[in-house]
Amino acid sequence: MLSDVEIAQAHTPEPIADIARRAGVPDEALIPYGSTKAKVDITKLDWSGKDGKLVLVTGVSPTPAGEGKSTTLIGLTDALTQLGQRAVVALREPSQGPVMGIKGGAAGGGYSQVVPMEDINLHFTGDFHAIAAANNTLAAIVDNHLQQGNTLDIDPRRITWQRCLDVNDRALRGVVTGLGGKAHDVPRETGFTITAASEIMAILGLATSLEDLKARLGAITVGYTYAGKPVTADDLNAAGALTALMKDALNPNLVQTLGGSPAFVHGGPFANIAHGCNTLLATRTAMKLGDIVLTEAGFGSDLGAEKFFDVKARFGDLDVAGAVVVTTIRSTKYNGGVARADLGTEDVDALRAGVANLERHVENVRKFGVTPVVCVNLFTGDTEAEREFMRDWASDFGVALAESEVWAKGGDGATELAELLLDNFSEGTSKQLYSTEGGVRESIETIAMEIYRADRVEYSVKALKDLADIETNGWGDMPVCISKTQYSFSDDPAQLGAPTGHVLHVRELLPRTGAGFIVVLTGDVMTMPGLPKKPSSENIDVDANGKISGLF
Amino acid sequence: MLSDVEIAQAHTPEPIADIARRAGVPDEALIPYGSTKAKVDITKLDWSGKDGKLVLVTGVSPTPAGEGKSTTLIGLTDALTQLGQRAVVALREPSQGPVMGIKGGAAGGGYSQVVPMEDINLHFTGDFHAIAAANNTLAAIVDNHLQQGNTLDIDPRRITWQRCLDVNDRALRGVVTGLGGKAHDVPRETGFTITAASEIMAILGLATSLEDLKARLGAITVGYTYAGKPVTADDLNAAGALTALMKDALNPNLVQTLGGSPAFVHGGPFANIAHGCNTLLATRTAMKLGDIVLTEAGFGSDLGAEKFFDVKARFGDLDVAGAVVVTTIRSTKYNGGVARADLGTEDVDALRAGVANLERHVENVRKFGVTPVVCVNLFTGDTEAEREFMRDWASDFGVALAESEVWAKGGDGATELAELLLDNFSEGTSKQLYSTEGGVRESIETIAMEIYRADRVEYSVKALKDLADIETNGWGDMPVCISKTQYSFSDDPAQLGAPTGHVLHVRELLPRTGAGFIVVLTGDVMTMPGLPKKPSSENIDVDANGKISGLF
Repeated sequence: MLSDVEIAQAHTPEPIADIARRAGVPDEALIPYGSTKAKVDITKLDWSGKDGKLVLVTGVSPTPAGEGKSTTLIGLTDALTQLGQRAVVALREPSQGPVMGIKGGAAGGGYSQVVPMEDINLHFTGDFHAIAAANNTLAAIVDNHLQQGNTLDIDPRRITWQRCLDVNDRALRGVVTGLGGKAHDVPRETGFTITAASEIMAILGLATSLEDLKARLGAITVGYTYAGKPVTADDLNAAGALTALMKDALNPNLVQTLGGSPAFVHGGPFANIAHGCNTLLATRTAMKLGDIVLTEAGFGSDLGAEKFFDVKARFGDLDVAGAVVVTTIRSTKYNGGVARADLGTEDVDALRAGVANLERHVENVRKFGVTPVVCVNLFTGDTEAEREFMRDWASDFGVALAESEVWAKGGDGATELAELLLDNFSEGTSKQLYSTEGGVRESIETIAMEIYRADRVEYSVKALKDLADIETNGWGDMPVCISKTQYSFSDDPAQLGAPTGHVLHVRELLPRTGAGFIVVLTGDVMTMPGLPKKPSSENIDVDANGKISGLF
Repeated sequence: MLSDVEIAQAHTPEPIADIARRAGVPDEALIPYGSTKAKVDITKLDWSGKDGKLVLVTGVSPTPAGEGKSTTLIGLTDALTQLGQRAVVALREPSQGPVMGIKGGAAGGGYSQVVPMEDINLHFTGDFHAIAAANNTLAAIVDNHLQQGNTLDIDPRRITWQRCLDVNDRALRGVVTGLGGKAHDVPRETGFTITAASEIMAILGLATSLEDLKARLGAITVGYTYAGKPVTADDLNAAGALTALMKDALNPNLVQTLGGSPAFVHGGPFANIAHGCNTLLATRTAMKLGDIVLTEAGFGSDLGAEKFFDVKARFGDLDVAGAVVVTTIRSTKYNGGVARADLGTEDVDALRAGVANLERHVENVRKFGVTPVVCVNLFTGDTEAEREFMRDWASDFGVALAESEVWAKGGDGATELAELLLDNFSEGTSKQLYSTEGGVRESIETIAMEIYRADRVEYSVKALKDLADIETNGWGDMPVCISKTQYSFSDDPAQLGAPTGHVLHVRELLPRTGAGFIVVLTGDVMTMPGLPKKPSSENIDVDANGKISGLF
């Protein structure tokens, strides 16, 4: 069997200028990066005219079995293109750090990939590096302010702004900086996150224009004064320079699928510490160009999809016309209690138990005013009895279901799904789950009850203090971005399936005043991954002609 | 008076594809980055055929008055183009960190600039970010090795590999990493350099092909075992992944001058901790395309030029056909003892005293087998008597001299200089100052006596230990890269002019086994700058159309 990189390298992509022209990008708006990648200059696009229909692709609670959500997204786009639709896909940029850590790409797989996959996984058009440059320039400005007299009276113990790098480097989680004496700044304890977890990544994801980008960058809270007053990037006169560092990154990246559909791959915020969607500008650009735009959100309906509707669609005033919930027979069995090693064995009873997880994700999507269809992404070894069970369940539950084989067949493997999707559009019905007028606490509790099906929410002493500070600082009307394990609807990763009667434990709240949301921590959240015992970087190589091998 | 950025923005550049075609770059080798920047794919160039003549532009010992070496380099190239020569310029990429710190561009000035200057100064084609990614991936791999059992027995106290960022951030000079407990790596003291000071920048500068790049990356020494044995990137199986991260960065960047000459802007190693020249591949590419190639080296003949000949030209087997020593009347007076505030006052006696500095730089260039011409870069306020003194001096000293006005007039301001250069070429005469066969100590002493005119060299106890270790580890045949103040021929920055009878103090030696040279420290060397009280980042802004202001 060919690897992903081998399949991608065997394919001859169309010139990106041809893809762009066919998609309707004006020549003067196209900024090529080589012959297969480009950025689209948002200041040179025609923003008048009708928007295409937007479709969200989400999934069940992720399992170690893998659901193939991105692969389905890409294959489904190619299926729609084959049916004569002007379909465009928008998805997140992969983070380079994990590429060096654990095998597994983030640009689809098999015959449903976006290409050039090596470039997309390594540097791409430099967006992550631009974010790190802006992030770390701001950090240097903060520490320099301490060193140069600290006229703003910043408390070094309360600087919340961390540095970042797109590297899996656990040694940078906790660091002391400023060592070496008086000439070398003020010693203090701090840390690095991975670039995808930087607030500037979230800002890139939500900005609607260069001016909006600058306003959001200026509104970043970097820490607090000794008196407890927030200090922003604007207080440090940093917003102009940060915007200069970010201005090219703001333009969406255009590539293509293996089936020749236009693909915007732009922005990659984490779905735990941030909202986990590609950029709003990529989605909007795609909607100006395509008749149907398919996009994704990280993890299941409880995380990425909830934030997609309540954060991204709220800020971007997006109408969502359809949705797909991706599942597999293997992951349904896993959610029904089958051990990972036994997932290859036929087990209809386990499906019967595990389908409760899928049901709840379908119900959750409906709460946002959208009619989802279910996609069963087939794997080798799925049996006829298991497939029949899923079809029967869908019929009983009252949801449209199609099977797909996108990894092996590309767009040809999603024709039925594409037709089903076309039959299930609605317009003008999508909505947010909560109004922000009730305040942060009410927003948390609405999500906990409605989406997670918790009985109640418990707050730590620290969380209650944070809630009070948020009110004092005037941030109470921001939407929330709950950081919770992706493996369970509850905050306990071991509670698979569809748990009820649980309690959501809120530990801490982190205001992200630039992004414009409040992060709500319900457990340990990892913002800087580490490398495994044998990093996948050890497999990567380059030949004398620049051809990369060993990348997935 | 218009600022540099205003002059650059008022200019309409030619499409880079046209510049490339005129320069003889095959279409299939051109990788556009937008319409005004490109990379040239070295694997798709025709490397057969004749080389153009190579000219090194160097200068006197730098002074606070500024000599305009890069500006002269660019203006001279345009003057040669105007004279009908196929002239190409190769110069270093600016570092982004200092752009945010102290006003002052690194892409020429006035009407002798390379454009697009905003892009060149910010991110450009991402080379610096690729270096930081490779550098920091290697750092993560080293720390991960400690965490995962340390089978190589690396001594955490003797890890020499530091992390890097292209930010002026003094707080990162000294850090402790790995805090937080057992799950978060091994605590140890380390630091960050600015990206330009990373050994990987030096490697990019000297690599001759992708294979050579991989070999050099693998040969990096990251630290030592408890038994004192060097540990390399190859020992950690890192070279393939690092090469994958660096493969695009290895391709030279093509832009243009305001006069429409092709300009390769590629690589930016520091001239103290490294060799201070643009990449060997950029120089070689320019030589395949142009009849005359002009290039620069950092600081004066004692630093950049010496390393240009003894490191870059040695590794690259380059023949140098001509050289220009750039000076100004103001900097000659400064070297003659005039205070900075008084440089505007006519002072022929000070010129008479200060010209000794210029004489020595001319003599130094001749020691490498090349016949230099002197360029007096005119400033407003230079008087006729002062200019006459310089012309008379040149006639007496026996060196060709021309005045230039490149800042104000572009190529028109260097016609006489260009003609003089064309009259002074020699071929096949350039050479290195020393053979490496005599060992590191002999190389240091040859440079100290011949170029710095020191009486002798004194070694610290640490330096003697380092010399012994270098022999033990088999690195004794590497050329040296002496890190010395740029302000004086001696290691004391206060000794201006042409000091003699001084002693060179060698404090420490740093093997750079990937780059292939030994760094010799003779004083404090700053590898991570800081920001000033009011960083120039505070002036930078972007309008709604993406136009940058306040950048120089």
